[in-house]
Amino acid sequence: GGTFLVNAPFPKDEFWDHLPKTMQKQLIEKKGKLFVIDAQKVAEESGMGRRINTVMQVCFFAIAGVLPKDEAIAQIKNSIIKTYGKKGDEVVKMNLQAVDNTLANLHEVKIPNAVSSKFDIHSPVPENSPEFVKKVIGEIIAFRGDDIPVSAFPQDGTWPTATTQYERRNIALEIPVWNDEICIQCGKCMMVCPHACIRSKVYDEKYLDGAPDTFKHTDARDKEWKELKYTIQVAPEDCTGCGVCVEVCPVKDKSDVSKKALVMAPHMQLREPEAKNWDFFLKLPEYDRSKLTLTKIQHQQMQRPLFEFSGACAGCGETPYIKLVTQLFGDRAIIANATGCSSIYGGNLPTTPYCKDENGRGPAWNNSLFEDNAEFGLGYRLAIDKQKEIAINLLPLFAKEFSEEFIAKLINADQKTEQGIAEQRARVKVLKDKLESINSPEAKRLLEAADYLVDKSVWIIGGDGWAYDIGYGGLDHVIASGKNVNLLVLDTEVYSNTGGQASKASPLSAIAKFATNGRPVAKKDLGLMAMAYGTVYVASVAFGAKDDQTLKAFLEAEAYNGPSIIIAYSHCIAHGIDMSTPLKHQKAAVDSGQWLLYRYNPDFLKAGKNPLTLDSKEPKIPVAEYMNMETRFKMLFKTQPEIAKENYKQAQINVENRYKYYKYLAERKFGE
Amino acid sequence: GGTFLVNAPFPKDEFWDHLPKTMQKQLIEKKGKLFVIDAQKVAEESGMGRRINTVMQVCFFAIAGVLPKDEAIAQIKNSIIKTYGKKGDEVVKMNLQAVDNTLANLHEVKIPNAVSSKFDIHSPVPENSPEFVKKVIGEIIAFRGDDIPVSAFPQDGTWPTATTQYERRNIALEIPVWNDEICIQCGKCMMVCPHACIRSKVYDEKYLDGAPDTFKHTDARDKEWKELKYTIQVAPEDCTGCGVCVEVCPVKDKSDVSKKALVMAPHMQLREPEAKNWDFFLKLPEYDRSKLTLTKIQHQQMQRPLFEFSGACAGCGETPYIKLVTQLFGDRAIIANATGCSSIYGGNLPTTPYCKDENGRGPAWNNSLFEDNAEFGLGYRLAIDKQKEIAINLLPLFAKEFSEEFIAKLINADQKTEQGIAEQRARVKVLKDKLESINSPEAKRLLEAADYLVDKSVWIIGGDGWAYDIGYGGLDHVIASGKNVNLLVLDTEVYSNTGGQASKASPLSAIAKFATNGRPVAKKDLGLMAMAYGTVYVASVAFGAKDDQTLKAFLEAEAYNGPSIIIAYSHCIAHGIDMSTPLKHQKAAVDSGQWLLYRYNPDFLKAGKNPLTLDSKEPKIPVAEYMNMETRFKMLFKTQPEIAKENYKQAQINVENRYKYYKYLAERKFGE
Repeated sequence: GGTFLVNAPFPKDEFWDHLPKTMQKQLIEKKGKLFVIDAQKVAEESGMGRRINTVMQVCFFAIAGVLPKDEAIAQIKNSIIKTYGKKGDEVVKMNLQAVDNTLANLHEVKIPNAVSSKFDIHSPVPENSPEFVKKVIGEIIAFRGDDIPVSAFPQDGTWPTATTQYERRNIALEIPVWNDEICIQCGKCMMVCPHACIRSKVYDEKYLDGAPDTFKHTDARDKEWKELKYTIQVAPEDCTGCGVCVEVCPVKDKSDVSKKALVMAPHMQLREPEAKNWDFFLKLPEYDRSKLTLTKIQHQQMQRPLFEFSGACAGCGETPYIKLVTQLFGDRAIIANATGCSSIYGGNLPTTPYCKDENGRGPAWNNSLFEDNAEFGLGYRLAIDKQKEIAINLLPLFAKEFSEEFIAKLINADQKTEQGIAEQRARVKVLKDKLESINSPEAKRLLEAADYLVDKSVWIIGGDGWAYDIGYGGLDHVIASGKNVNLLVLDTEVYSNTGGQASKASPLSAIAKFATNGRPVAKKDLGLMAMAYGTVYVASVAFGAKDDQTLKAFLEAEAYNGPSIIIAYSHCIAHGIDMSTPLKHQKAAVDSGQWLLYRYNPDFLKAGKNPLTLDSKEPKIPVAEYMNMETRFKMLFKTQPEIAKENYKQAQINVENRYKYYKYLAERKFGE
Repeated sequence: GGTFLVNAPFPKDEFWDHLPKTMQKQLIEKKGKLFVIDAQKVAEESGMGRRINTVMQVCFFAIAGVLPKDEAIAQIKNSIIKTYGKKGDEVVKMNLQAVDNTLANLHEVKIPNAVSSKFDIHSPVPENSPEFVKKVIGEIIAFRGDDIPVSAFPQDGTWPTATTQYERRNIALEIPVWNDEICIQCGKCMMVCPHACIRSKVYDEKYLDGAPDTFKHTDARDKEWKELKYTIQVAPEDCTGCGVCVEVCPVKDKSDVSKKALVMAPHMQLREPEAKNWDFFLKLPEYDRSKLTLTKIQHQQMQRPLFEFSGACAGCGETPYIKLVTQLFGDRAIIANATGCSSIYGGNLPTTPYCKDENGRGPAWNNSLFEDNAEFGLGYRLAIDKQKEIAINLLPLFAKEFSEEFIAKLINADQKTEQGIAEQRARVKVLKDKLESINSPEAKRLLEAADYLVDKSVWIIGGDGWAYDIGYGGLDHVIASGKNVNLLVLDTEVYSNTGGQASKASPLSAIAKFATNGRPVAKKDLGLMAMAYGTVYVASVAFGAKDDQTLKAFLEAEAYNGPSIIIAYSHCIAHGIDMSTPLKHQKAAVDSGQWLLYRYNPDFLKAGKNPLTLDSKEPKIPVAEYMNMETRFKMLFKTQPEIAKENYKQAQINVENRYKYYKYLAERKFGE
């Protein structure tokens, strides 16, 4: 006798046949009532984009019978005026419109007497998944986790990586379609994709043998890739349909200037053929990492992401940075992750987005506490250094087995390039193979420590709540240590995951919890504070504003033999923005001077040069223009117009002062 | 049958009569053996200054019989070579010399058959002390604390202030004697005294009636004090004899240029007459605070210290800063004290050095945890602001009782000067007197909150272990808040109280626990990091290098309506220096550029001017010259000469770079 409401894109008359057998059976047996609405369509037509909460709420009250329908609808409308009043008349109007449109589009579906469906509920993971994925992960996904025996779980608390690939959430309404004819192969779409769902490969033509009919490819344009084929491929079942790849695409289709080299198209029809194309694409060989020019985005983006299909929001502004780390250094990265969004989508039981390359190498990842993540990551570094030291101390004991030259190379290998890393790995393999055959405690110990002769890349990752606030004492302690670790601050300027509280990264006037009248003080300048050490590499980046500066910063940070910190502008749903076009916000933040781009390299200082490079140009738009693009700022004019006015004025003064100050620092002549 | 060893300055034949009756009686009854040595004399003659540990250790082994005497002495000599080897040959030689000298000066005293003493053990506190002091504090001092009933203790955990005055430790061997004829009355001796044991007053001649014969006075030299008398008086029973007042005295006695306007003389003869002089001095009236020119040290030092006779080390480099706070703002100060030396000598049960002026006003003091002191102090501020707000909101309800003008004045009083504070206090008194007679809940509530209409001065005090390390996350959070609090960092550059561990304030190459090879990285620039906010008053001071700059900084910090932080160079016994001449170390630190003097005032920034004033001159001595004055640096040449050499080189580079950087910042032109 229950009532069942479904949001689905199917006409009411066809809807029954889109339900799987088990569901039809249950509805018939349980004598249910069934309603259907195309909530997305209603929301979009009411001007609300993809926000369906109001639509679904109206449906609930219209059919649940908790209140007489007319009274319920009147109450909803009152509540809309009250709730959204602060956000502006436009938002109120849209929501009221949505209520009316909802009622017109909510349909009851008569339940037939017999099951007629041709399919049943899909298995939660593909049939060809690994055993653990089928027996544990899949069962948890299917809400049957309570039935798994304890013995099926790993005894040491570790959890296999590379498992989001089996989840295939199919949540996109539309996915991007590649126009191979006009694409300039710049790589930007790959760089900005939050979920690593759009990828490119270059490969020899011969690999196209057996390609599905609809698999697209074209000639590679890069001079270094003459004779090779080029493909951009979307993972249709993992893409969230955010559309950021389309936003960033710099190409205009001459035949229709509203279109780009990527065009969003309905997922439903594309799912099946593109899934096949994706499988084929995955089997194409990876391009040799050591032959890529990593400072060029189109080259660098050929590196396979080792962070994919996470549970982050569609259009997330944090994940592209993490993905970049895993592309550049993931095969040797060890990541300490602070609590926050990145720890949730980074280790979202039962699946993990961190994955492995074709050699089984990928990031090792762990999450400690909010307040000690930097220290936790420093511990990685100290342990790695100690293991390496042990290996170096043991090596001379094997002078009989290995040449002096070989041992010297193992100890002093230059591992600053992908080539250098590859060569050292080969040496360590030779070492380990030999050690396997020696039966002594020293050989066993060296065998354990040998892998540490290959450089590891330690990354300490977290949000602004961690870096500016709760974990700042530790972060400061770690950057003061002089140790070679890399800190990545995913700066959303607010506690995103815990519900939108103000952090010290929140900018002046932004509304947040504990700052309902707008944050009364300016954003803490974490970068400037880190620069005070003179021994810390510091960069401030925004990939949506200057992607090659972002890439440069990540390469420099890792190359610097000491602590590095990258402060990364991360647009966020908490900003109150349209998440399908977040990059224009990044650009406006930089163009207004609200967000500065710079890099501070202590190696320059040692060489007697100015360590600071200001990558931002003079602000060219008023900061108010940027602020008015985001609800977090705009809202204040509704609730506290006087404060908002004053704040905006002060924000402009702050932005100008800050730019001038950085310029003064960057212009300092050295060696005088 | 026990053995009793006494360190005393009396010849062996006179010694017996210097023992009190009770002690003589016990020695006779218990058939004790008695030994005496003038350890101070032996130590001094062996070149070890006041360090008597080796002397006393030798005595112990010479008479205790735990080892055959010759073997014990040989072992001690071996142990000296081993223990002090790192500190240099000179130290070893001195200690070996001390061993021989000790044996020559250790005497057995034959115990007579009868008690002959003319006096007995003094009561632990004076007979005329307050009840609580006699019944609780005195008993604890006399080691009879276990016998005090629980009911004698305060129920709410508070403890009376102003109780060190009853302790009278009489630990000085010598105390300063004032030469009133040559003294220029500059006030510097008062400023540097760590224990507030040397003080000055100006007063009308009439108050000299009844002065003890030896009470010194002269004509006041300051133009504003024409016709008045001037006295500098020492508290003979509280002075520790450190001699810093003599070090700072700028006057040379023309009749003997080795002498100054203060000369150290044996305590024993001076104790009794000077105690009488001190009592007389205390009864002289205080000069009107509101008439002092506080930027002049000789004037400012007329302010009565409200922090006196603490248990800090003789010559302590921290306490003069705390004393200064209590002189300037103590009658309205509320202090949050981080764990560390300052929390120990600041609340050293059973006595407290924080005290009260003639009106019963003095600092309220509390110590929370190491890790939350800044937040704890911020809590004071928030509570005070709230209470004031409550008072302001209630005042208009009493429009019948008070004139509109009076209420407006209470709310808007200018309290930036001592005069303003005094006037507001008078207004609050009128208010409270009237409220007492009104029987309404509002009147009662306003009565409770009324005192908060007088401005309070919130001070958050701690060492570098707190400010740079353990409490830094909170310190940063508090200075980011924009709230009106004052933070004082007593920077000894090492965890002094917990036993000498390195902190992030420890300078490059300084030896400390966890940095036995010298600290490998440079000192954290806490001030520069605080300046990054642009809204925090920041000063770096060293009273031994530029006392008027110190004074200016404290006045400006308190006047700034926002967070202020003062980073105060605090010489320390942990530096391995002669604590009777610590000021030359402060001077050398500044002259070498190792310690910068500066003030950063955000009010200047608001006015479009450069906020930074660099008070340090170009370094004029090599930093090595400063470093070699202190064992913490010098020691490294014994243990790690190569590292020491490299560090010294780097230290010089750092010092020069840092000075240039600050100069560049201070020279920036504004308004262009």
